[in-house]
Amino acid sequence: MLTYTAPWRDMHFVIEELLALPRQWAAMPAFESVDAELARQVIGEAGRFASEVLLPVDASGDLEGCHLNDGAVTTPRGYRAAYAAFVDAGWPALACTADSGGQGLPQLLNTALYEMLAACGHAWSMYPGLLHGAYECLHRHGSPALRERYLGKLVSGEWLATMCLTEAQAGSDLGLVATRAVARADGSHAISGSKIFISGGDHDLTDNIVHLVLARLPDAPAGTRGLSLFLVPKRLPGADGEALGARNAVVCDSIEHKLGIRGSATCVMRFDAATGWLVGEPNRGLAAMFAMMNASRLHVGLQGLGHAEIALQNALAYARERVQSRAVDAEGAGPHPIVEHAAVRRVLLALRARVEGGRMLAYRAAHAIDLAEHSADADTAARERTLAALLTPLAKAVLTEHGFACASDAMQLWGGHGYVHESGIEKTLRDARISMIYEGTNEIQAIDLLVRKGVADAGRGLGLLFDELEATLPAQALHAPAVRRAIGAMREALLAIIEGAAGDAELPYRVAPDWMSALGIVVYAHGFACADAVAAQALAAGSGDAAFYGAKRETAAYWMRFMLPELDARLRCIEAGSFALPRFDAR
Amino acid sequence: MLTYTAPWRDMHFVIEELLALPRQWAAMPAFESVDAELARQVIGEAGRFASEVLLPVDASGDLEGCHLNDGAVTTPRGYRAAYAAFVDAGWPALACTADSGGQGLPQLLNTALYEMLAACGHAWSMYPGLLHGAYECLHRHGSPALRERYLGKLVSGEWLATMCLTEAQAGSDLGLVATRAVARADGSHAISGSKIFISGGDHDLTDNIVHLVLARLPDAPAGTRGLSLFLVPKRLPGADGEALGARNAVVCDSIEHKLGIRGSATCVMRFDAATGWLVGEPNRGLAAMFAMMNASRLHVGLQGLGHAEIALQNALAYARERVQSRAVDAEGAGPHPIVEHAAVRRVLLALRARVEGGRMLAYRAAHAIDLAEHSADADTAARERTLAALLTPLAKAVLTEHGFACASDAMQLWGGHGYVHESGIEKTLRDARISMIYEGTNEIQAIDLLVRKGVADAGRGLGLLFDELEATLPAQALHAPAVRRAIGAMREALLAIIEGAAGDAELPYRVAPDWMSALGIVVYAHGFACADAVAAQALAAGSGDAAFYGAKRETAAYWMRFMLPELDARLRCIEAGSFALPRFDAR
Repeated sequence: MLTYTAPWRDMHFVIEELLALPRQWAAMPAFESVDAELARQVIGEAGRFASEVLLPVDASGDLEGCHLNDGAVTTPRGYRAAYAAFVDAGWPALACTADSGGQGLPQLLNTALYEMLAACGHAWSMYPGLLHGAYECLHRHGSPALRERYLGKLVSGEWLATMCLTEAQAGSDLGLVATRAVARADGSHAISGSKIFISGGDHDLTDNIVHLVLARLPDAPAGTRGLSLFLVPKRLPGADGEALGARNAVVCDSIEHKLGIRGSATCVMRFDAATGWLVGEPNRGLAAMFAMMNASRLHVGLQGLGHAEIALQNALAYARERVQSRAVDAEGAGPHPIVEHAAVRRVLLALRARVEGGRMLAYRAAHAIDLAEHSADADTAARERTLAALLTPLAKAVLTEHGFACASDAMQLWGGHGYVHESGIEKTLRDARISMIYEGTNEIQAIDLLVRKGVADAGRGLGLLFDELEATLPAQALHAPAVRRAIGAMREALLAIIEGAAGDAELPYRVAPDWMSALGIVVYAHGFACADAVAAQALAAGSGDAAFYGAKRETAAYWMRFMLPELDARLRCIEAGSFALPRFDAR
Repeated sequence: MLTYTAPWRDMHFVIEELLALPRQWAAMPAFESVDAELARQVIGEAGRFASEVLLPVDASGDLEGCHLNDGAVTTPRGYRAAYAAFVDAGWPALACTADSGGQGLPQLLNTALYEMLAACGHAWSMYPGLLHGAYECLHRHGSPALRERYLGKLVSGEWLATMCLTEAQAGSDLGLVATRAVARADGSHAISGSKIFISGGDHDLTDNIVHLVLARLPDAPAGTRGLSLFLVPKRLPGADGEALGARNAVVCDSIEHKLGIRGSATCVMRFDAATGWLVGEPNRGLAAMFAMMNASRLHVGLQGLGHAEIALQNALAYARERVQSRAVDAEGAGPHPIVEHAAVRRVLLALRARVEGGRMLAYRAAHAIDLAEHSADADTAARERTLAALLTPLAKAVLTEHGFACASDAMQLWGGHGYVHESGIEKTLRDARISMIYEGTNEIQAIDLLVRKGVADAGRGLGLLFDELEATLPAQALHAPAVRRAIGAMREALLAIIEGAAGDAELPYRVAPDWMSALGIVVYAHGFACADAVAAQALAAGSGDAAFYGAKRETAAYWMRFMLPELDARLRCIEAGSFALPRFDAR
């Protein structure tokens, strides 16, 4: 079974030493009371919750799975108690504003929390994982009456929420949503239709579940411009002012038998003229949902980071313990612990680089969301809004690719033992795979990043990102020249794509995945160049933590030597994008 | 659920048009009666068996798994009937020599058979999959008495076999094997110890199981030079000359709960002074096993090819059927089948390239094994023995990486539907993962290829492979110049590694995985350059099969444009191999 220790040292490095966030929070009215000490406290408590409360029920929850009886879902043993502890500790309210009963802390801290929840209990974390998105959605777009009735319960975690978007025929293409909403005289709507892949559509963790449902009004235009958002509770308000009245006409018809996250109930939900209330404007449902899009995508990216971290920790522990064969260059005749073998050290270093690079990206993206919302300076807020819009699809896709790849690479160190349930790592592999798919497949993220946000604004947003990367690169940093060259190459490639797209509209779609991979490599390289400069300075100053800073410099050097060369391959594939991809009608 | 159609068109292309094997078989005394017509017949029948008999019990077998009761393993429903049909059709005997009761057909045809068995029933194919290795082992090293008693039963498939190598503490490092063998007065040995990860250690498919067990004689030296091989049957011969007598002291203690291949019983086997007979010389057990090593590794590579093929076929079918969103450059307003979308076509093309490139490599490796054994020309046989020794670890590692990656890439096209059991593709992903691990992890293959077989003989063997690649490249082929440059770069890189290793013994171990990836890219590129030339000629000659040849040329072009650039990244990582990988003692 896997173990987990909160990676607080690296978290502190990114938060305090690399991004200097406590100083930035001090300049933001919403966070002026948040200092390094408070952040450390929150992260420490979150790590304890994850490793001491969640991890112990994670593997058993996977074996046990969820069960559906008479329309009611039972979660695995231990899930209810863990959720009660989560609510008692006030975690749901962490990043909700104080005026809604929240603690008003930065998204950054919620980010660290969810990284650790995902590492120790991805399946379980699916239930509260939607809370924040539902909160944002209601907070911004709900009517006063809806906010009054539902917001406090969501902030406290007393009730949980779902996002009911997907239908059998409408996955990536929400324009095909067919669920109908018909107005009633009392101002409510009757919602009818069937939704699939609804995480936490039913469960036994809370008394009520607040479904946010995309549906179509009778006179709505076709496509995504005809979607409206409705709040449909599992239980209606009581007639006598009680919070919980009769059951609404929402039923969980079945749950999926999935590759992973088996403790998370993935439901088919049937709405039979269920009572719902409009959230936001008619036909503007997607806009209301976009309010939560950046935060949700980042959360999925954090799952990848969590998977990569727990894979690294356990691969390292196993490699130190498992003894096989003589290692060249190791002392004595052997057999040696496999951590002495070059092939194993290479794998471990590659795991560490993806974890630490991913953390720098994810935390920078989270901070961009915080600045976009709370910066005292309007120009900064506007710039960070652009950065957040670019960094979140990037983080979602790149971190989830890494999460899955790290689980797979780590498994390899166990050999046959890794393929067996007892090792724990095969579960990480299964869980990690979904993050590449949901909340928009990684291919959709690539198109969002390059086509919708890159080419559509003639590259201005991405140019701003490149400016930011260049501006934050320490001039004297060892790796600055290589990173500057890489950024220059990315600018050129983008320009070529934008020019090419003028005569070949499909071009950016063909090269989007390569473009996104390339950007990921460069953004990580930028992070490592900055981290290396910080570590070099700390070492020069005779810091007491020489082992940490030394390892950080080695990881940075690894990225430059072994991953940056990958950039050229990606750029050459982008150049080859003029190649008209064959059609598959006739094979 | 997945469907499967035998990829006979591409198989015929590789066998007849690319490698011209019928002509080569005609020149080999052992195969002079094998012509194209017979090969087509065998492949056709094999494809029908795989798709009509195996595939229908594959997904249900995964859900049902194996069960252990009182030391007896029950396989999933349908497995027994499928095995009986397999034996009745004579498949076990396909590539066994006629003097042992076999059909004496080329390994190449066994290769095509096992590619399709793995695609349609990887778990089931584990049971007969070990037959051929056991046959080779006994055929070459067994005493006349053992051959007399066991060989015929294995050739017919009436009895099945296992390979008992791994122990809890001895995985990649067989030198740590602790199972003991003590001689008895009657010439047999008493075998005692515990073996893990024994595929088909017990099952209900045959009345008897022939275990080939690595164990250590009392006076044996430590390490791999002290291992002897023993034949230990589940049931002993009857005292009265009956084939089946008393149960031997071999017990299945438990079966593993695994990520995939759940229909295959992976057993912990306990030997309690079980009766066994020495196979080959004392302390030369590993040498006896090496007899089967190339064939076994190639079989595992074929699993990767089978997984990639079934992933491609089903991804393509799903992409044609699933309608989502408007595709740029497609006709009409949409929504279109996702096969029209550029991102999907890119994935499909990448799948096809790995399948077709993998088939060229696997079949060439199988033919090398055939030539090494049966060429009428001693020089050819010697050269092909070297090529087989290099191509099999390459095929094992590269094809299994591709099998897993293709299953994962294909799953992405299903979106959330792919994550659910009903799609079938999540099972392919789970099954495919083990092939990267067993029969020597892919990291071990890389070390075998570069260190044991490359650096150790100062690059002579690999030089011979490069010569072969250059000599078989059609001079006028469109892609010949690019491939020739790539081969040149590989020669230089090898030279640099050999020179570097003189002063830095760990260097080749550090760069082995990159070297193997690089070689895979180049060998596939060579295959595609040749295939493109054949296709171009067929098109110029006005062949009737223009769609097939046109697609082949597109696939070849894809490999050159999108995969060959990856070679430079790998070569730069190899250059960076001088980087001393950090040690992980102190993190």
